[in-house]
Amino acid sequence: MNPRHLISLADFDVAALRGLLDRADALRPDALAGTGMRDSLRGRTVCTLFFEPSTRTRASFQLAATRLGADVLAFDAATSSGKKGETAVDTLRNLEAMGVDCFIVRTAVDGGLHELAAAAKPETRLINAGDGRSNHPTQGLLDMLTIRQRKGADFGRLSVALCGDIRHSRVARSDLQALKALGCTDIRVCGPDALMPDDATLDGCRRFVRFDEALAGADVVMMLRLQRERMEQGLVASLEEYFADYGLDGRRLALAKPDAMVMHPGPMNRGVEIADAVADGPQSAILAQVANGVAVRMAALQAVFAE
Amino acid sequence: MNPRHLISLADFDVAALRGLLDRADALRPDALAGTGMRDSLRGRTVCTLFFEPSTRTRASFQLAATRLGADVLAFDAATSSGKKGETAVDTLRNLEAMGVDCFIVRTAVDGGLHELAAAAKPETRLINAGDGRSNHPTQGLLDMLTIRQRKGADFGRLSVALCGDIRHSRVARSDLQALKALGCTDIRVCGPDALMPDDATLDGCRRFVRFDEALAGADVVMMLRLQRERMEQGLVASLEEYFADYGLDGRRLALAKPDAMVMHPGPMNRGVEIADAVADGPQSAILAQVANGVAVRMAALQAVFAE
Amino acid sequence: MNPRHLISLADFDVAALRGLLDRADALRPDALAGTGMRDSLRGRTVCTLFFEPSTRTRASFQLAATRLGADVLAFDAATSSGKKGETAVDTLRNLEAMGVDCFIVRTAVDGGLHELAAAAKPETRLINAGDGRSNHPTQGLLDMLTIRQRKGADFGRLSVALCGDIRHSRVARSDLQALKALGCTDIRVCGPDALMPDDATLDGCRRFVRFDEALAGADVVMMLRLQRERMEQGLVASLEEYFADYGLDGRRLALAKPDAMVMHPGPMNRGVEIADAVADGPQSAILAQVANGVAVRMAALQAVFAE
Repeated sequence: MNPRHLISLADFDVAALRGLLDRADALRPDALAGTGMRDSLRGRTVCTLFFEPSTRTRASFQLAATRLGADVLAFDAATSSGKKGETAVDTLRNLEAMGVDCFIVRTAVDGGLHELAAAAKPETRLINAGDGRSNHPTQGLLDMLTIRQRKGADFGRLSVALCGDIRHSRVARSDLQALKALGCTDIRVCGPDALMPDDATLDGCRRFVRFDEALAGADVVMMLRLQRERMEQGLVASLEEYFADYGLDGRRLALAKPDAMVMHPGPMNRGVEIADAVADGPQSAILAQVANGVAVRMAALQAVFAE
Repeated sequence: MNPRHLISLADFDVAALRGLLDRADALRPDALAGTGMRDSLRGRTVCTLFFEPSTRTRASFQLAATRLGADVLAFDAATSSGKKGETAVDTLRNLEAMGVDCFIVRTAVDGGLHELAAAAKPETRLINAGDGRSNHPTQGLLDMLTIRQRKGADFGRLSVALCGDIRHSRVARSDLQALKALGCTDIRVCGPDALMPDDATLDGCRRFVRFDEALAGADVVMMLRLQRERMEQGLVASLEEYFADYGLDGRRLALAKPDAMVMHPGPMNRGVEIADAVADGPQSAILAQVANGVAVRMAALQAVFAE
Repeated sequence: MNPRHLISLADFDVAALRGLLDRADALRPDALAGTGMRDSLRGRTVCTLFFEPSTRTRASFQLAATRLGADVLAFDAATSSGKKGETAVDTLRNLEAMGVDCFIVRTAVDGGLHELAAAAKPETRLINAGDGRSNHPTQGLLDMLTIRQRKGADFGRLSVALCGDIRHSRVARSDLQALKALGCTDIRVCGPDALMPDDATLDGCRRFVRFDEALAGADVVMMLRLQRERMEQGLVASLEEYFADYGLDGRRLALAKPDAMVMHPGPMNRGVEIADAVADGPQSAILAQVANGVAVRMAALQAVFAE
């Protein structure tokens, strides 16, 4: 792991992962009260450099940076210089020249942050807010923090079921990396064949065709968002059929452990991948994930600036 | 009135209304000098959650919150999660989980804030920045503050003429609620039949067909904006005809009291509902309304956080 | 020069120009470290009022104002009130009424700031961030600062070559004004006939048809951006041909002085007006320009508020 960047959880060893989770856990009360640690990043400029639109993730990072006292610049590269023919590297270098210290980058290009990191000044920090289908490391971290808070730190004892469009999901890839690194050995994945990856993503996981079987005795059920474009692409027949086969409702959840926790990275398609009663029910950890997101992003910002 | 929310002026009794106006009046110098009261909301996060676009109202609230020291998050729900199929309640709950303390909400849904208020955490504050055709309470308050500053606090002595598209106007509804609550008994309304409401909005008002008659002896003339889409809907024949029948020009203004004040919520369609000479003339209070808007919004923010 | 506004460098005498450059030079370390001078504009509200979109220039001004401690309001007039039929003057007056002290204005209207300045309150400040093809004074200033840092303050000794679409370029007009005011007498301009101005812009400059000749012995080579719409307008045959005739590559740069500096206002079209090897080479001052932009904008803000 390059300690000044946070690009992929694949770069983390278990100690580094745990250290970041510990840091986020300690920051949580401040993160949520909004009081933050205003002196931590005072005089630093953090730029959300988004080549793909994303309001929620950007808001979470903006709040995290603000609560650490940084100046935050929102640079919407999707509707900006990119349209004018400027390369992503040139946009980055321009903003560096304006005094930006840290970039929160979202891009449609798989591995796109490596090119930016190679072009950046030595003192510049990069945090990946999602690149193509590859990585969404802060989402992986906030998911691990949420699991640890509810189920304890011994991931080796946990059965985790992950259901949905794993093929196109950077959330799934970061979650799987983190789960494996933290010692989870019982990882079950489920979803239509057309939405399963054909790379090494599922190494070490057990593949289930029937969701009911994947759920049996699970401690954690992680649902993924179904992008509506998958229908247009013909990868999914209909939303009704998808829900019937892979939607999480009360009957299905009862197949997991009685105290199983339910997760979803949001935004949810209610009635498509998850039923209302489950999304809003007592086993749902979905809003806890969101809250942990701010703490994890504060921790990530502190970590890249600590180097 | 739920003291933690500001949803409709219909929830206010006269004492609560006056208290809020007094608070705004006292805040005015700070509001306009931009110095504000930076410790009032320090560590608080205020989010403008706009399901409909509005640059002006959002700017006014942003400045009000900033001058009270809050962190401000602009969340453009019109181009965001809503498009991804997320419900308004889920968007609100996600932002609550990120530590947002107060939402400034604009929505096309009449009464839409009640659903949000029912779903919100007990400690969350909501301020209505316009819901459908129903309410725009801070506009009503800033209009009352502007009238009071120029005409004194005894609304029972005032004749107020309101002209234009009352049917589709949340501004008109909030103004009428506030005028009645503050004791105004001579309220005249005027506009094309197609733009008059068919509900109880006009109870206690006098309806005029001819604008000249509505203006006779008025102390306050409140003009409403004509949305251009009313023409496309066939509710108005032409802009020229509208101005001839319902536009406020110098000749018409002379029918009101010599010191009558002219108001408009903006943005103005010059030459459609109001003539340049009147908009920019000595009787215009239009920019005073805008200035009072920031003070009223600071007062509203302080009020919901005082509970 | 109206000391409360920065509208055109044509309003500056040489002493005023040098004073502003000195101020920017002194501010540079703070500007780039992001530490700024947070008390300079505390309690002031600076609004970026952009009637044309521009992410880069807006970001530079936003960082400059933030580092001086101002509250910054981004008002996107392109997608806002203008669409609702509000005049630019009304938008300005509304924001003034909300307590905005200084406007950073970008507009497609040549000379558009004069109308705004005439309508503004006496205490309001205006800074031109680009009007039509006419002025981009802070770009002119940052270019002069960059030249002075590398080549010294005696502009009378310098040969400056300017190449590209001068006809449609506010950057070129502001640069030429500033170069002449600072005493530069050897100014060479080059570009296709269709992109040369037909007004007094080139008075006192030498016009070259062949770029190679314009470059001979130059100390400074300023390249301009080629808007892709020039092709659609038939003013340029093809990007390849344009690069062959007017692109700056290593062979051409070797015709200038060995220590000649290369400038570009960005965003660059690599391979159209400039080759990679030159843009990223040791003679490029392009990122220094960007860095100086923040310092110049801080200096401009301080200057207009000092009056």
